[in-house]
Amino acid sequence: MAITRTDVLAAAREVLRRHSLADLSMRRLATELGVSPNALYWHYPDKQTLLAALGDDILADVTAPADDLEWDERLESVARAMRASLCAVPDSAEVVSSGWSSGLSTMAVLDHLTDAARDGGLSASARRGLVTAIAQLVIGLTIEQQTRQQMERLGVTGPGDRDYDAEFADALAIVLAGARQVRAAQTVATAAS
Amino acid sequence: MAITRTDVLAAAREVLRRHSLADLSMRRLATELGVSPNALYWHYPDKQTLLAALGDDILADVTAPADDLEWDERLESVARAMRASLCAVPDSAEVVSSGWSSGLSTMAVLDHLTDAARDGGLSASARRGLVTAIAQLVIGLTIEQQTRQQMERLGVTGPGDRDYDAEFADALAIVLAGARQVRAAQTVATAAS
Repeated sequence: MAITRTDVLAAAREVLRRHSLADLSMRRLATELGVSPNALYWHYPDKQTLLAALGDDILADVTAPADDLEWDERLESVARAMRASLCAVPDSAEVVSSGWSSGLSTMAVLDHLTDAARDGGLSASARRGLVTAIAQLVIGLTIEQQTRQQMERLGVTGPGDRDYDAEFADALAIVLAGARQVRAAQTVATAAS
Repeated sequence: MAITRTDVLAAAREVLRRHSLADLSMRRLATELGVSPNALYWHYPDKQTLLAALGDDILADVTAPADDLEWDERLESVARAMRASLCAVPDSAEVVSSGWSSGLSTMAVLDHLTDAARDGGLSASARRGLVTAIAQLVIGLTIEQQTRQQMERLGVTGPGDRDYDAEFADALAIVLAGARQVRAAQTVATAAS
């Protein structure tokens, strides 16, 4: 029976859910799907391509935020949606980071952040800085949290006492304050020129 | 001949420099040092403990910033020093992230950020947010960059066109603007109360 890309990505998510990213090999995936590795390579020529597609798929629910929100509310909405999507799938933050590294990911979710920053009137370098600060806050913190969860799952360590959601909320507030501050400074500079 | 912790950490750095984090096993390290695995376990009972110590060691050069700097200049100084230390050792950002996850790292470098934020008069939640935003910007972005560098080193991909240093500088500017903005808002609130 022929498999589709959707089948492959669903099976890959299942490997992450039941096991970990370390267990996600092309061979393992072919076995889970009951097909030959060649059937898999027909869809994804190598693991990097698969991981990039999987990362995009995991973030696919992060759609453009509602038009009636203010530009900074839209930034917050996208950031929270990114984190929620990642938190739903174990080890997904590392998958997304890897896909961004390879350049094989669409990185489409970052367009929503860039669009909101542009609507806020931020300069090109401020937009790039803002998108980077939000994206790496989400990715970096969630990698750390998901690594911890794997350690706890494997019994390597007991439950920790860090509140990652609170760390995220506090950090996002700082970044958004920075975006508003940079915008206000730009507005003043424009008015004075 | 007896080995010291310093020997072990130096050998671990060498494995990262010449190979990668994926190659850093306790067995491999014992072979590199020419000792039995037991000699290694005497210093570090397991890989998690070793990675946490290695991460602390890689960031050991990030010392408290000069006293004569303003609080926000000290934040910037620590952030840049963290990134420089990580960029000097391949795969080090993932090592540090893992050490923070396990709770076995001292995370001492974050104290320098917290101290500067406290001198800036930031509230506890603002301090936590600021430290998180800076730390994850450094860690998240450097993980992505170092993963890319491994891909290029292995010939999986050609040279990329992203300027990670520029992304970092722009993002750090946003986060520091946020810190100043939150501080100014706190000052106004205190004066009005």
